[in-house]
Amino acid sequence: MDKILSAIDANLENSLARLCELLRIPSISAQPAHAADCRAAASWARDQLAGMGFEARLSETSGLPGVIATHHGAGPAAPHVLFYGHYDVQPADPLALWHSDPFDPQIVEGPRGRRIVARGAVDDKGQVVSFFEAVRAHLAVTGGLPVRLTVLLEGEEECGSPSLAELLTKEKANLAADFVLVADTNMWNFETPAITTSLRGLAAVEVTVKGPSRDLHSGLYGGIARNPITALTRVLGDLHDDQGGVRIPGFYDGVRQVPDALRESWAGLGFDAAAFLGEVGLHEPAGEHGQSPLAQLWARPTAEINGIYGGYQGDGAKTVIPAEATAKLTFRLVPGQDPAAIVANFERFVRARLRPDAKAEFKYGGGAPGFIVNIEAPFMRAAQAALAAEFGRPAALVGSGGSIPVVEAFKTHLGLDTVLAGFGLDDDCIHSPNEKFEVACFHRGTRAHARMLAAFAAG
Amino acid sequence: MDKILSAIDANLENSLARLCELLRIPSISAQPAHAADCRAAASWARDQLAGMGFEARLSETSGLPGVIATHHGAGPAAPHVLFYGHYDVQPADPLALWHSDPFDPQIVEGPRGRRIVARGAVDDKGQVVSFFEAVRAHLAVTGGLPVRLTVLLEGEEECGSPSLAELLTKEKANLAADFVLVADTNMWNFETPAITTSLRGLAAVEVTVKGPSRDLHSGLYGGIARNPITALTRVLGDLHDDQGGVRIPGFYDGVRQVPDALRESWAGLGFDAAAFLGEVGLHEPAGEHGQSPLAQLWARPTAEINGIYGGYQGDGAKTVIPAEATAKLTFRLVPGQDPAAIVANFERFVRARLRPDAKAEFKYGGGAPGFIVNIEAPFMRAAQAALAAEFGRPAALVGSGGSIPVVEAFKTHLGLDTVLAGFGLDDDCIHSPNEKFEVACFHRGTRAHARMLAAFAAG
Repeated sequence: MDKILSAIDANLENSLARLCELLRIPSISAQPAHAADCRAAASWARDQLAGMGFEARLSETSGLPGVIATHHGAGPAAPHVLFYGHYDVQPADPLALWHSDPFDPQIVEGPRGRRIVARGAVDDKGQVVSFFEAVRAHLAVTGGLPVRLTVLLEGEEECGSPSLAELLTKEKANLAADFVLVADTNMWNFETPAITTSLRGLAAVEVTVKGPSRDLHSGLYGGIARNPITALTRVLGDLHDDQGGVRIPGFYDGVRQVPDALRESWAGLGFDAAAFLGEVGLHEPAGEHGQSPLAQLWARPTAEINGIYGGYQGDGAKTVIPAEATAKLTFRLVPGQDPAAIVANFERFVRARLRPDAKAEFKYGGGAPGFIVNIEAPFMRAAQAALAAEFGRPAALVGSGGSIPVVEAFKTHLGLDTVLAGFGLDDDCIHSPNEKFEVACFHRGTRAHARMLAAFAAG
Repeated sequence: MDKILSAIDANLENSLARLCELLRIPSISAQPAHAADCRAAASWARDQLAGMGFEARLSETSGLPGVIATHHGAGPAAPHVLFYGHYDVQPADPLALWHSDPFDPQIVEGPRGRRIVARGAVDDKGQVVSFFEAVRAHLAVTGGLPVRLTVLLEGEEECGSPSLAELLTKEKANLAADFVLVADTNMWNFETPAITTSLRGLAAVEVTVKGPSRDLHSGLYGGIARNPITALTRVLGDLHDDQGGVRIPGFYDGVRQVPDALRESWAGLGFDAAAFLGEVGLHEPAGEHGQSPLAQLWARPTAEINGIYGGYQGDGAKTVIPAEATAKLTFRLVPGQDPAAIVANFERFVRARLRPDAKAEFKYGGGAPGFIVNIEAPFMRAAQAALAAEFGRPAALVGSGGSIPVVEAFKTHLGLDTVLAGFGLDDDCIHSPNEKFEVACFHRGTRAHARMLAAFAAG
């Protein structure tokens, strides 16, 4: 292992140069004008992997192609790792806020040493190349790999993965593995690596309350006519109890309290809720009373109103009773909650509260259950050991309040569990101007990936 | 009189053509972009009156100008009538629901004969032009007017009359009269004229609830961050009790029950609440339990949410916790309620219900108390006699759920009582898409105005 790590150290500048090659390709998947650039990025990755001895190809979909590459490594007895990353990036705008061209990567000095500034520096090109360089070091030093390895790169992660299910279904036989390793998450902080062990799921619903058949003048009808905005706010105002809990019947069915061991682990992270909230102008955790701030973020379900509209929105006053009013809600879910049951219970909750002449219509968006990984699984223990060896401290076992739809997709379509271990930092400005990746994070990430590959083989 | 009425009949098409000229000017006072259009409408009215021999001019204010025109008519011994109308109109949105351009007036066939469809067709351009045409007929047939007449047109009625007090104060000496005639109300039904003897007042307020300093991702912050939409709906959802009453402390201070005599008079009108509501797709009176439908409309105060907005309003879902959310409210008031106290109590009501990290900001619109007129005054009796002669049945003495703040302003600033006699119908869709004025109502309104001018002189 020491020789492999030394090779990584010695090749750092070459590794950075290869990353910059990829960063120069503006592979913005959301913008059709960049479709050719996306294909160029996919081809670049395919060629890199082929150059290292992988069987590598593009896999076409109805959208942008995936990259699929296989290395048989240590042969059929070795564990089989499926690595996932994405070669597409977010749009770069607002361009005026960038200090340099987002697609002309710059290596500049920052408070933590050098950093690479470019769109995709960390999300996800830097993370992908960090892994590639770990593979390159293994191959250069040992002539092989300690595991069987399949690489899957997606090209539409930044625009909602519209073709991912198609790709996984079509390539299912070529994506057989023991587990998935996803490199698209952050460290806990600059000194401490992290493995994301739980994700919240999501259920989306839109409710429109309809009242009169047309907008009414509140002078002519006010008092006698049902007002749909009033009816809607009356329902939504009842959504939470005085302790911050959600009042939809059955909402907490299947929700488990955070296990003591995990709660103690989170307490050890030293999360500063006041600082976290202070950065966005807030002061007090607003969730369920009696739940810690991290539990409110990672382990407890929510009901959020993401948008509301109805009636007059212009300047001044308009004395109108509108014909309808709409609210858009999403529920963040935790393991044990069924997205379909949640939205069905919400619909019942609304209908039970509507007064005469207020009728509700519902539209359902996507849903995904929450996810929790078994931290006792061999590949999870191997990842923890490798990260501890590289960083000199155990990896933080963290939750995420958001969803990473690929994790659910791998479980649904391939039946695989996922290890989420990445080397970004919370201040990397992903999706924002001046996205960056600390060179130290890139470098230690490469070393950690090399150690994880060996640890997976050791089981 | 017969010659005057014949002249009105003979000139109907010319009268309609003049109305259409005015309707083509999009004089939306609430939208600063239409300020020049408002001035164009004012100038059109001034020029019409000047063309009929009035001393006519615009009177500037800190907002949009008033139109003031005087005709000395029958000389200093004759009664002096101050006619009031407004040349501004409501915004036309939602535009998609109009069947024709709101500012390209169409004369189309309807179940009661021809109708004029345009924004302002009845409110108030059609009513104003109906009066102008009555004046024109008197002048054409007799060469003079039976009364002294001052015309006052306001340009900000649809946005709360912010400069009316300034205008009345400045022009007080030029607005001396015996009483005011306001043409901005409805008939009881297509066959029965009406004089409005009571009006509800109005208080307008806008509340914005602010939470985080920027829009947040609900995956990263959901559960711990205060959601301003949720906070706003929680407050507004508490606005009414289970019996339809308003829960703002002090809201009903000074409110009197409907007197028995008036309640009996209303019972005689044969108001069909089911039909009234059925025309707009509703079925049940939604106001205070225990109050008759007419009392809910005319004699009881209300709290209406006229508009609400915050967060994402586009297609699909967006997992955002927005920085703020806004609601626009108006309160319909009855005599005895103080508009300033109502909005102050509302502000206290909101602040008392806000959770930590939700801050409320308020904007106050115009306010006016409710009003009752003396039905025994000579000009009131004259108006009733003229309407009965034109329509062959007595005018209904009705209340109005709406506000005409000028009535209070005339009393306060000029010391004048007001006759409210207008020729709109309840199904004219004022403030809504496809506003219309029946040509028959426009025509009979012109004839009735001509009769009223003569009746006032006979006093």
